[in-house]
Amino acid sequence: MPSAFNTLLEPDLREMLSQHDDVGVNAFCTELYPSVIAEVLEGMESERAWEVLSHAPPLRQAEIFENFPLDYQVVLVRTIPHQALSRIIEEMAHDDRVDLIGQLEPELVETLMPLIAHAERVDILKLLEYPEDSAGSLLTTDYASLPADISVQEALDRLRSQAPSRETIYYVYIVDEQRHLLGFLSLRKLILAKPTSRLSEIMLRDVKSLNVDDDREQAANEILRNGFIAMPVVDKDKKLVGIITHDDAAEVQHQEAEQDAYRQAAVAPLDDGYLETPFFTLAWKRGIWLVILLGASSLTAHVLNFFEPGDASWMVLFLPLVLASGGNAGSQSATLVVRAISQNETKGQARRIAWREIRIGTVLGTVLAVIAFSMAWLLLWRGDYASTVGLTVFAVVGFGTFFGAMLPLGLDRIGVDPALMSNPLIASLSDMLGVVVYYSVAHWLTAGTV
Amino acid sequence: MPSAFNTLLEPDLREMLSQHDDVGVNAFCTELYPSVIAEVLEGMESERAWEVLSHAPPLRQAEIFENFPLDYQVVLVRTIPHQALSRIIEEMAHDDRVDLIGQLEPELVETLMPLIAHAERVDILKLLEYPEDSAGSLLTTDYASLPADISVQEALDRLRSQAPSRETIYYVYIVDEQRHLLGFLSLRKLILAKPTSRLSEIMLRDVKSLNVDDDREQAANEILRNGFIAMPVVDKDKKLVGIITHDDAAEVQHQEAEQDAYRQAAVAPLDDGYLETPFFTLAWKRGIWLVILLGASSLTAHVLNFFEPGDASWMVLFLPLVLASGGNAGSQSATLVVRAISQNETKGQARRIAWREIRIGTVLGTVLAVIAFSMAWLLLWRGDYASTVGLTVFAVVGFGTFFGAMLPLGLDRIGVDPALMSNPLIASLSDMLGVVVYYSVAHWLTAGTV
Repeated sequence: MPSAFNTLLEPDLREMLSQHDDVGVNAFCTELYPSVIAEVLEGMESERAWEVLSHAPPLRQAEIFENFPLDYQVVLVRTIPHQALSRIIEEMAHDDRVDLIGQLEPELVETLMPLIAHAERVDILKLLEYPEDSAGSLLTTDYASLPADISVQEALDRLRSQAPSRETIYYVYIVDEQRHLLGFLSLRKLILAKPTSRLSEIMLRDVKSLNVDDDREQAANEILRNGFIAMPVVDKDKKLVGIITHDDAAEVQHQEAEQDAYRQAAVAPLDDGYLETPFFTLAWKRGIWLVILLGASSLTAHVLNFFEPGDASWMVLFLPLVLASGGNAGSQSATLVVRAISQNETKGQARRIAWREIRIGTVLGTVLAVIAFSMAWLLLWRGDYASTVGLTVFAVVGFGTFFGAMLPLGLDRIGVDPALMSNPLIASLSDMLGVVVYYSVAHWLTAGTV
Repeated sequence: MPSAFNTLLEPDLREMLSQHDDVGVNAFCTELYPSVIAEVLEGMESERAWEVLSHAPPLRQAEIFENFPLDYQVVLVRTIPHQALSRIIEEMAHDDRVDLIGQLEPELVETLMPLIAHAERVDILKLLEYPEDSAGSLLTTDYASLPADISVQEALDRLRSQAPSRETIYYVYIVDEQRHLLGFLSLRKLILAKPTSRLSEIMLRDVKSLNVDDDREQAANEILRNGFIAMPVVDKDKKLVGIITHDDAAEVQHQEAEQDAYRQAAVAPLDDGYLETPFFTLAWKRGIWLVILLGASSLTAHVLNFFEPGDASWMVLFLPLVLASGGNAGSQSATLVVRAISQNETKGQARRIAWREIRIGTVLGTVLAVIAFSMAWLLLWRGDYASTVGLTVFAVVGFGTFFGAMLPLGLDRIGVDPALMSNPLIASLSDMLGVVVYYSVAHWLTAGTV
């Protein structure tokens, strides 16, 4: 659905811009969902996107801005005048803006900070201090809090004037003057309560809370297990320092599952989606592990050499290494593509993915072939034998990379769960191919003596 | 934190029960979080748990009940009198009770249904009809809806009297008399609006909605991507049939990621956690795939036989099969344990996991050994050769299963990310061990002729 909006709305929007139709552009910025607007703008050059955004008030700009992926935010920031940018940062969700500022060059941050209102600046600096893997890094300080000794009626009036902006007004935290967390009330309970009741009479006192130093993943799991919209976070003195909201918890759970999947397939975790990750970043994140695994396989060759010494069986020594290289490269591709399919990243991208995997396979195959050649040379001291191993590794890594990506894509296209093409199954298919290639190359390079 | 509650509260509770301290038990049931109460009760025999629960009013019973895992719910149901059980089902969240009823024996459902109020019964039957992988299966019909032509003041009054129970009151859907979805209002917007405004003036008209027939995973992703608390679901006539809430969406995302991880490692997806899955279920879900993969590897043996015919190199033919068997079994264990670690299932369970994996490894090793023996026999027609292959498969599958589980547990204990012990790395280590075992067994069984 969102992609349909994108293609439908973009031509209209460009038309409005060229006609200087300010009313139309303003309507575009205010009448649609921020996530839809962000998706349309993301498809445009950043100067154009800012031209559109500048028609909206700062709060709306911030709401749309939060919906861009972080790397697009970083690009867009460069086209926005500093004064306007500082207004946007003031209005952004407190956790999102800290993520953005963490990505900007120190010089830009230094220029921006003095332009940002004092209270917001203090808040940003405090949130920036929490370590990346702590619950503190997920905090937003944009929550509703009230004292315990007021009435329900007064509480509702105060909430109206606080009007906590975009995170959550649905959970209200009751604190004393030193901001110690005393209790909790849901907005539901507040509007159902007698207007004259005191908050202290109706609030829940035994509030489940997290600690700023808690592990980020554990904190997220705790929120999701309870099905809460948000959970309060306290410091070591039990003072309320912020809340973590359900959407950020779900995002953490998702990221951690993705990263586990990558690590399990021996791919260093990606920061972005599969197709968004730059070519050489992806090649590096795969290659480094393939090299480590090649090293481990070369030990197997040495073990085999102990049992099968002598020139006659040289091919056997490197058989496990050759087969493992193809299987590992194939498993990496399959895992990346299966994750990408589950994130809807692959629709209509089959040709692009094929071409990309061919290039990655060539690069990885070349690097591994050189290393495998050297390993074989050091064990066998024969150029033709070492060349056989090197060439075969090049071929199986190249084929493995390509077919490991194509098989799940093919299954998905015919409506079968692509994860059924499991990594061990891909490794098995790659084994068969590997044997054929290995013996054929050997036959050719050693002039038929094998 | 929750487990601490468990051990702290359970002795107190047993004391209160034995002293017939009804006031104390009632306080236990009403003053703590339902999730905490559920966790304490889950540690008790189901008769005892019901003895405690029976002190609470039906709404509270239902809230606690929803927090039990589904399989405990099914057990507990047997100890609850039918009349009381039907009251609980009436009060349960609409999606949770449909999940429960789907698990009960048809006879029990037939006995219960007449005891349940008519409107609730109709709702249950309707929700039971949606296919398991559709957005409809995640529906709850417990949401707030209002007509468009009333004032904000009247809307708040009506919400107070509807008081939508436990799912969400925070999002209000505006419908016409045929329940067509016209618009949307958040409770936040309602309490901030002028009391005399009409809903039709302030509601959002372009409401993002899902269709009952949408794929369940896509629907969940859509809710999470937008960070909504809930999303409305319409039928093909655009009539509102229910909502899906953020916590159910996060649960689906989590389940799907788990299942992908299992499938990628060639384990048929588990319905429960690793330690909760019964022994033979787990053995079956792993074994079936190991057998398929063994079949694929035997093709590699035939391909090798084409290149290396003759008795001299019989060991080479089955080298890839032997090594792959160990690696595959190890990868399965590692994946299961890494997922269990990320779900906090493994704390203090290392010995139990070790013992379990030893038994599973023995069962899987025996089955695969018999099959591998037969395959080798059919290709080589030699009892000693086939026995070598069979015995080695038994050993590498057994060791692979055990070490594949223990290595991630060990990494976790010393504070290293257990997913770093990736499946290909486990396969590599298993290869080395496999070579040693294979040649040692061959040396022993063929009386030194190898």
